[in-house]
Amino acid sequence: MPGEAVLVPDFLAPEGLADCVRYRSGELPDEATCSTVGFFVPDYIDAPNPEWMPELANLEVVQLPTVGFDSALPYLPVGVTLCNAAGVHEQSTAELAVGSIIARWRGIDRAARDMATGRWDHRRGRSLQEATAVIVGAGGVGTRIATALAAFGCRPRLVGRTARDGVLGAAQLPTVLPEADIVVLAVPLTPDTERMVDREFLSMLRDGALLVNVARGSVIVTEDLLAEIPRIEAVLDVVDPEPLPPGHPLWSAPGVLITPHIGGDTDAFPRLARELIGAQVQRWRRGEPLRNIVRAP
Amino acid sequence: MPGEAVLVPDFLAPEGLADCVRYRSGELPDEATCSTVGFFVPDYIDAPNPEWMPELANLEVVQLPTVGFDSALPYLPVGVTLCNAAGVHEQSTAELAVGSIIARWRGIDRAARDMATGRWDHRRGRSLQEATAVIVGAGGVGTRIATALAAFGCRPRLVGRTARDGVLGAAQLPTVLPEADIVVLAVPLTPDTERMVDREFLSMLRDGALLVNVARGSVIVTEDLLAEIPRIEAVLDVVDPEPLPPGHPLWSAPGVLITPHIGGDTDAFPRLARELIGAQVQRWRRGEPLRNIVRAP
Repeated sequence: MPGEAVLVPDFLAPEGLADCVRYRSGELPDEATCSTVGFFVPDYIDAPNPEWMPELANLEVVQLPTVGFDSALPYLPVGVTLCNAAGVHEQSTAELAVGSIIARWRGIDRAARDMATGRWDHRRGRSLQEATAVIVGAGGVGTRIATALAAFGCRPRLVGRTARDGVLGAAQLPTVLPEADIVVLAVPLTPDTERMVDREFLSMLRDGALLVNVARGSVIVTEDLLAEIPRIEAVLDVVDPEPLPPGHPLWSAPGVLITPHIGGDTDAFPRLARELIGAQVQRWRRGEPLRNIVRAP
Repeated sequence: MPGEAVLVPDFLAPEGLADCVRYRSGELPDEATCSTVGFFVPDYIDAPNPEWMPELANLEVVQLPTVGFDSALPYLPVGVTLCNAAGVHEQSTAELAVGSIIARWRGIDRAARDMATGRWDHRRGRSLQEATAVIVGAGGVGTRIATALAAFGCRPRLVGRTARDGVLGAAQLPTVLPEADIVVLAVPLTPDTERMVDREFLSMLRDGALLVNVARGSVIVTEDLLAEIPRIEAVLDVVDPEPLPPGHPLWSAPGVLITPHIGGDTDAFPRLARELIGAQVQRWRRGEPLRNIVRAP
């Protein structure tokens, strides 16, 4: 018999869902409670706990608070449905991607550092107007980034696995990459995309191109990227290894801006995540089809 | 008899306008050449030269490469038409404003500084989604900023001198300022706007509000702003005094991000400015009405 309880991180418990079992980061409930759980929401970036899944004997549904689901797959028990948080992070991630691109092209990062010594160093920046951006990954995040860049007069070109209306296929990459001023990585981490951005991929980028990673760190082969810097620049919200250890050469690579995997993490996240979780629990309890299924049992 | 020559900074000389007199920063041509000049384009931010105007005895038109024209007015000879560069800087300035807001709300500035020590410090940021932005100044720059913010799900409210369709009047500021998560200053510097953002103005902002200045430094009373920090945060592309001297308390004020007056200065600027100058010279030579007139003779 599947469990009926909902196990959810304290800060993501939906309002109006009084009967869920809330947990704090890292604190697995006792075995008796675990056996009642049918719907599990793993914790967020700071305290991922996919290893709890096999502890929940009567689990039916895992609702991730993230869009990426790569790290959950190895722990997903047979017969359990996996849902991601599509719709929750896209806008925040698009904001970070566009903000980071502007920060790098306008030298906001350098200006922030110059404040420590009171240095007023006016330099001409690059504008998004008429720039060409190739966005690899035509899902929710990539599509939002394309829309936001277009609002600034940038020419976005979406690339998905296969060509469709408004989306180029991955086979077109060798054609479009050499035309890109900006290349944004917004793909899920899969065997196809892991280490996709290697020496060969990077060699297709023009001098001065800006590589943006808001996907997963291991989509890029870090040592191959380092070999191409400073011929190209990079804005990385995710890196490999992650967290990046002190002293790693990426920290001091010229023309590189690193943010600590904050893509989807804004004040909008808990609000939107609670709404999604509440709606999914309701569907589950009513026997209605779940949304955002990324692995059916 | 008005002069017929066009005096223009070397880097802004329009292609296809072979017969203009080009100058390098700070190098005023000899008196004989000066007397032939009817159309003068002053230099850009790094080397402003409004004091050349009275040296040009037969001047008819001054075409500024900037939107702001406050610094030109004291030197404008009687009978000379002053035009600004409306249309040239709006988009670049909107990019910087939005990029800087995102940089501050997501901690991109802090992340840039943390790179020096290899510190990976994940923190939750603020999203533009459902934030309220009051944009003071409903001209080209303010309107573009409003459009760009709206593309991210932000609620922009434009405030102009007088109310009109889609624009609130300045008299509404006491009503809208207390509702603002973001206040963007995009006004021209005039006797009305100079020192407009004083203790009283700032006291209307809610705790944690972000003040953004892409207008002119002296729109804000610097010491009044300092007195309100860190209750509010600020993103300043222009400051008073400017350039900000080393050791000034603004440099180290918490929650403040300063960029060195780079709002309109991107690679798009010379291209768009050359187009504008070429078109204006053509109109002037054909006796057609000029565009962007900010002071008629």
